[in-house]
Amino acid sequence: MDPEEFRRRGGEILDFIAGYLSTLETRRVRAEVRPGEIFARMPEHAPERSEGWDAILKDAMGEDGPVLSGLTHWQHPSFFGYFPASTSYPGVLGDLLCSGLGVIGMLWATSPSCTEVEMRVLDWLAEWLGLPGSFTFSGTMGSEGGGGGGGVIQGTASEATLSALVAGRWRVLEAMAGEARRTERVVAYTSEQAHSSVMKAAMVAGLAHDANDRSRVRLIAVDGTGAMRTELLREAMERDVRAGLKPVFVCATLGTTGTGAVDDVEGVARAIDGAMEGVGGARGSARPWLHVDAAYAGCAMVCPEFRWMNAGLERADSFCVNPHKWLLTNFDCDCFWTRDRRSLTGSMAIRPAYLRNGREDGEEGDGFPVVDYRDWHVPLGRRFRSLKLWFVMRHYGLEGLRAHIRGHVRLAGMLEGLVAASERFEPVGERRFGLVCLRPRARAGEKAEGVDERARWIVERVNASGRALLIHTALPEGMAEPGRGRVVIRVSIGSPGVEERHVREVWRLLEEAAGAVS
Amino acid sequence: MDPEEFRRRGGEILDFIAGYLSTLETRRVRAEVRPGEIFARMPEHAPERSEGWDAILKDAMGEDGPVLSGLTHWQHPSFFGYFPASTSYPGVLGDLLCSGLGVIGMLWATSPSCTEVEMRVLDWLAEWLGLPGSFTFSGTMGSEGGGGGGGVIQGTASEATLSALVAGRWRVLEAMAGEARRTERVVAYTSEQAHSSVMKAAMVAGLAHDANDRSRVRLIAVDGTGAMRTELLREAMERDVRAGLKPVFVCATLGTTGTGAVDDVEGVARAIDGAMEGVGGARGSARPWLHVDAAYAGCAMVCPEFRWMNAGLERADSFCVNPHKWLLTNFDCDCFWTRDRRSLTGSMAIRPAYLRNGREDGEEGDGFPVVDYRDWHVPLGRRFRSLKLWFVMRHYGLEGLRAHIRGHVRLAGMLEGLVAASERFEPVGERRFGLVCLRPRARAGEKAEGVDERARWIVERVNASGRALLIHTALPEGMAEPGRGRVVIRVSIGSPGVEERHVREVWRLLEEAAGAVS
Repeated sequence: MDPEEFRRRGGEILDFIAGYLSTLETRRVRAEVRPGEIFARMPEHAPERSEGWDAILKDAMGEDGPVLSGLTHWQHPSFFGYFPASTSYPGVLGDLLCSGLGVIGMLWATSPSCTEVEMRVLDWLAEWLGLPGSFTFSGTMGSEGGGGGGGVIQGTASEATLSALVAGRWRVLEAMAGEARRTERVVAYTSEQAHSSVMKAAMVAGLAHDANDRSRVRLIAVDGTGAMRTELLREAMERDVRAGLKPVFVCATLGTTGTGAVDDVEGVARAIDGAMEGVGGARGSARPWLHVDAAYAGCAMVCPEFRWMNAGLERADSFCVNPHKWLLTNFDCDCFWTRDRRSLTGSMAIRPAYLRNGREDGEEGDGFPVVDYRDWHVPLGRRFRSLKLWFVMRHYGLEGLRAHIRGHVRLAGMLEGLVAASERFEPVGERRFGLVCLRPRARAGEKAEGVDERARWIVERVNASGRALLIHTALPEGMAEPGRGRVVIRVSIGSPGVEERHVREVWRLLEEAAGAVS
Repeated sequence: MDPEEFRRRGGEILDFIAGYLSTLETRRVRAEVRPGEIFARMPEHAPERSEGWDAILKDAMGEDGPVLSGLTHWQHPSFFGYFPASTSYPGVLGDLLCSGLGVIGMLWATSPSCTEVEMRVLDWLAEWLGLPGSFTFSGTMGSEGGGGGGGVIQGTASEATLSALVAGRWRVLEAMAGEARRTERVVAYTSEQAHSSVMKAAMVAGLAHDANDRSRVRLIAVDGTGAMRTELLREAMERDVRAGLKPVFVCATLGTTGTGAVDDVEGVARAIDGAMEGVGGARGSARPWLHVDAAYAGCAMVCPEFRWMNAGLERADSFCVNPHKWLLTNFDCDCFWTRDRRSLTGSMAIRPAYLRNGREDGEEGDGFPVVDYRDWHVPLGRRFRSLKLWFVMRHYGLEGLRAHIRGHVRLAGMLEGLVAASERFEPVGERRFGLVCLRPRARAGEKAEGVDERARWIVERVNASGRALLIHTALPEGMAEPGRGRVVIRVSIGSPGVEERHVREVWRLLEEAAGAVS
């Protein structure tokens, strides 16, 4: 493929993307294919000889090709499922440049710009979110021995959580010696409404055999708002320390996936203090690691009116947010900050001969920390992902991103009002961001199971229409209310193209489905 | 940004990429900036208001901007460091389409095409590499209970190794019950020449506190070729089992990072059998997991003349190769196959309510396995990465990729010949792929340390010229030869644009440096 054909074919793909994103509304949101249909449509064997670009792009961009015929369209303005995945033109352009440069930023030395642009952009974003200066490079410049804070782009919040858990375990065990340093005694804590990735991190890190294994993971019950009950956290930690176990990791959540609930970080930090003091437990460097998972809701911190969530963050050891969720930076872009670089890299650093270059993480170059991002997460190789975030921040500016968030929050408020005024539905929980939770109102004499069944049926009916996509979740014990359903319909408003009419339409579909259900 | 400006700015970036990649030769390979220089060049704060695209792209693509002024150019034809990172035009186009579609393929249901195109493309590549049918979806269709094999794209081999280790631990512990299921007794094995990511995976998974902790990781010594000494592996496993430990994971390497050495997979499998039988150890499902890390050299398996490496693969539980290294698919694209899907997903599957959809991994849709790739690796969200591999395979065809590999191997053979005939250098190890290892010949009366010092000096001198980039590595004990240096100069030939003249030039630079050193 010569440069000329690359430009031409690239231009065709750009045209396709612009056309695709600007006409998504004409498509059904959800793919309607049977398992195996796409697989069967592709040839059994790959081609021995080169195929022409006409054929390749026809398959890749044609309406009947194996790509478009089985897509659920995440960028569709009526995609209200999960949390949003906000692709934007500037983000796509940043990714394109990243692909074209093809550099690998595993070490500072393997492409200094790849590391330092990321450092700077993460400092910028920390400032926009109102994070403590202790989480930034600029705010901790000159710290000795690899200490200080800073941020890094990880692929997903799942990876960030795993990194934080591993760093916390390392820090606690590092402060011990010899036999005391037994990994099988470490325990992790989070709420029962935390994202499943916390449990998965525990499984990968060796704290749990499977998702049901609670021997070294405590899922703390939540209160009626869905927030972790900090007094139960404290009790659990005290109990464990008394039993000879070692608390190493606590994960608080800002904006749970289920209902958007917000843990009280300050309260969680106090519970940790209380527990460790109450039992004469470890202090100082052996303090359990407090990670704050703000993957979704953290995006809202660009707006001052959401900074109430920041209370207590100066007590956290790490924090993550996903600009790919709600800040128009296309996937993957999880931003993870720590104020304890030393423990993070301590838990993951390896220095074989072929990676030594004389300028390595923790060494200071005239007061500037030489950061080898390889030691900040599981992957070794890494792309120049900061380009897309850099493009997005500069293109939209702080004002633009605030307007983006506020627009969605306003739409969510509007929908919340419609739900509250409705005879068929009722709101669930306190709505704060772009996520609106609702359920059918119980009919006279109807059991909770019946309400739940209707809720599921309604979601499926809306999805089957192809005109919107929703998912449901189930409330935990702590959020259950007598006589009401436990199944909650989630309307997650965050698609880059969503407008008021799309929200009104999904509401109409919901009401229609609720009216049709027997 | 409207569609029109997106097309126009995208076109500018395509032009830039085409220009950048086709004129790389005119640039210095290695960046020459001091730590902090790029960071300092960027503003302290991000812009409150939107900036124009002229300014953004000037910084992103301008010669004096923070991107280009600090890049080490991995796509440069004279980049001979590490292993290659092979970007190609088709790969960039695949990535571009992926960015534009912006779908998240965490579950089959969240975009069936994203999952099924990947399944098919991975089956294709498995066939091209001559992998056993037990590693493919097609070859194991209809297996019951989530069993059977198949492939998945992971970001990096580091992530693949971690997944394999965790799956192996799960399989062995799953076969035990209650108290016997103690994670602190599990042990992993690899060679001292394995990639550092194996040790890192052990640290993340909780088998090691840091890179020096050998309590539950055995780094088996290598023979003179750099291959794992399988008799020592067997002895180590027997010793551990007798001590009540549980071998869960063995990682063999095809093409070590240091010198391109190849472990005997068949021999490793036999050693595992022998050890487990010899001590009456676990059998069947509790067999330790055998992972084969072929990140670099596995790419060569597209050529039949390299399939001798495949011997024993039918005994392996998983295998990975990085098309982003040597098959022209831009980073990130690690392909990972297993023949034991059930253990892989068993170790990582979580099913919260909001991820339930009625069509989940392991459930069969008319004999077709519904795959939720989320359960195949650490990340939850995932991009449509198979697009770039699909584009590359169809554009080059099997013939094209074979020609690509063979061209580099031919150049490596040529360089090897020059080294062998040289008075200043001597070849090290058996050269098989695109990696040529050499060191200065010892001068009369010169000690090994002196030779090593010269080797390091030569590498730095070549790199400082900006006309080529090399790295060095150090040989382990098993590969040391009396009176010869342990520091080895690596010339890794694999840049997409490398031609004979670039290899002749790096050789000239090496000879010149060797002549200049006192």
